[in-house]
Amino acid sequence: MDTVSTNRSHGGTQGVYSHQSEATGTTMTFSAFVPDHSEGATLPVLWYLSGLTCTQANVTEKGEFRAACARAGIIFVAPDTSPRGDDVPDDEAYDFGKGAGFYVDATQEPWAANYRMRSYIEQELPTLIADHFPADMDRQGITGHSMGGHGALTISLRNPGRFRSTSAFAPIVSPMNCPWGDKALTGYLGADKATWREYDACALIEDGARLPDLLVDQGDADGFLHEQLKTGLLVMACRKAAIPATIRMQPGYDHSYYFISSFMAEHVAWHAERLKA
Amino acid sequence: MDTVSTNRSHGGTQGVYSHQSEATGTTMTFSAFVPDHSEGATLPVLWYLSGLTCTQANVTEKGEFRAACARAGIIFVAPDTSPRGDDVPDDEAYDFGKGAGFYVDATQEPWAANYRMRSYIEQELPTLIADHFPADMDRQGITGHSMGGHGALTISLRNPGRFRSTSAFAPIVSPMNCPWGDKALTGYLGADKATWREYDACALIEDGARLPDLLVDQGDADGFLHEQLKTGLLVMACRKAAIPATIRMQPGYDHSYYFISSFMAEHVAWHAERLKA
Repeated sequence: MDTVSTNRSHGGTQGVYSHQSEATGTTMTFSAFVPDHSEGATLPVLWYLSGLTCTQANVTEKGEFRAACARAGIIFVAPDTSPRGDDVPDDEAYDFGKGAGFYVDATQEPWAANYRMRSYIEQELPTLIADHFPADMDRQGITGHSMGGHGALTISLRNPGRFRSTSAFAPIVSPMNCPWGDKALTGYLGADKATWREYDACALIEDGARLPDLLVDQGDADGFLHEQLKTGLLVMACRKAAIPATIRMQPGYDHSYYFISSFMAEHVAWHAERLKA
Repeated sequence: MDTVSTNRSHGGTQGVYSHQSEATGTTMTFSAFVPDHSEGATLPVLWYLSGLTCTQANVTEKGEFRAACARAGIIFVAPDTSPRGDDVPDDEAYDFGKGAGFYVDATQEPWAANYRMRSYIEQELPTLIADHFPADMDRQGITGHSMGGHGALTISLRNPGRFRSTSAFAPIVSPMNCPWGDKALTGYLGADKATWREYDACALIEDGARLPDLLVDQGDADGFLHEQLKTGLLVMACRKAAIPATIRMQPGYDHSYYFISSFMAEHVAWHAERLKA
């Protein structure tokens, strides 16, 4: 693992790191904020998965998570959203290819070799974090924004017990039922929709997956709400499955980091409460 | 005044605005955050002047000031750092010309026509803010970073009584005594150093200007500290002039927004205390 940069911030260290990934066959970059802590201590880990077009940099610069994480003593890990590099296949659209990995393991060519963000986030990066950071991997939470909210929800639903806490900002709640998801899952997984269900939070819940609880914030002035995000489907799925979800519509807020940063401290505090030793 | 964008954030409105400036002869852009407030109320104004290479966008995206300003009910105004546009003279260096207005009124050609950031910040923009925002102009504070810290200090020192509170992040404290300042003041004002003194915080204090108090944070791992910023000169000037300055060296912090954002909430709270009705 190589250190790209470190900056002291909010009583901790904001680092950016890169490493050769076995899952994607590329160099992957991620950021991690580690609050100051006593020698030998281990801290809980909050994963943040980013949305379309983002790298780890967006939330690292604009997310306003550090003050809250320093206060709560939580490590904040932000991975990239796709493999990168000149040799990695790409698409001209912003919502497919680089910056749009959708947290799946692709099965279709030419994507299958590199677009393995599920394996990367679920298996490879946690091992790296456990090895290189003062992380208590028995205390993990996960959150994310938009495509990354989809990632957070589906990864948590597929791995019961791994995350003590799950939240999301303006998540894509059902890729099977929106244009972004339809395009991405067709492209990465092919036309057989049976293979899509494990990448759809609402379908996973319908198929029996559960979360102990859930916090979601969604801006009601978000231009993607009605066509892409469809928060109502998650509200219905959680109600039907008796998942005690707190899904809040925030009046006037849009899809940007101006929205995310407004509720970040509350999300961190919500995770912190569930990640106590 | 044109609205470039507005985003709801932290219980207020983050706007970006542009207008035709008489001072600079160009279109100028600035950002303003206005917390929610009751109909007819006026709020104090905190000015933030940015550093070299920045526009209003850097602090607006990375400054982490909104939560604190919303809590305190303070309008936060962030101007650009120079005139902009294809017709505006520029220099290839990052530390002169566009992005490097140094908050002076230039007297030398070809800069004198447009590089009038002193008049813009001291006279024109306050009038615009008073006209278009729910601002109580009897309650103003000022802060800034690096070149903008120099701007905040010198503007406050030259306008006694206008600002109830003054602070700075890693300010250039004496442009007459550092390479950045020497280059900028020579270029904009010419070789006669007598004309430089009103643009040098330490010289202004030496010449009798005073502040009721002052808060400065400076990272001790800031790569510009010893050659450009020279915080020690301000410590000495304040001591000699009996200005009760709180000038804090922050161990491990550098010159970036990772540093600024770490202490922003404290600065906003410090201003808020002095801007009470």
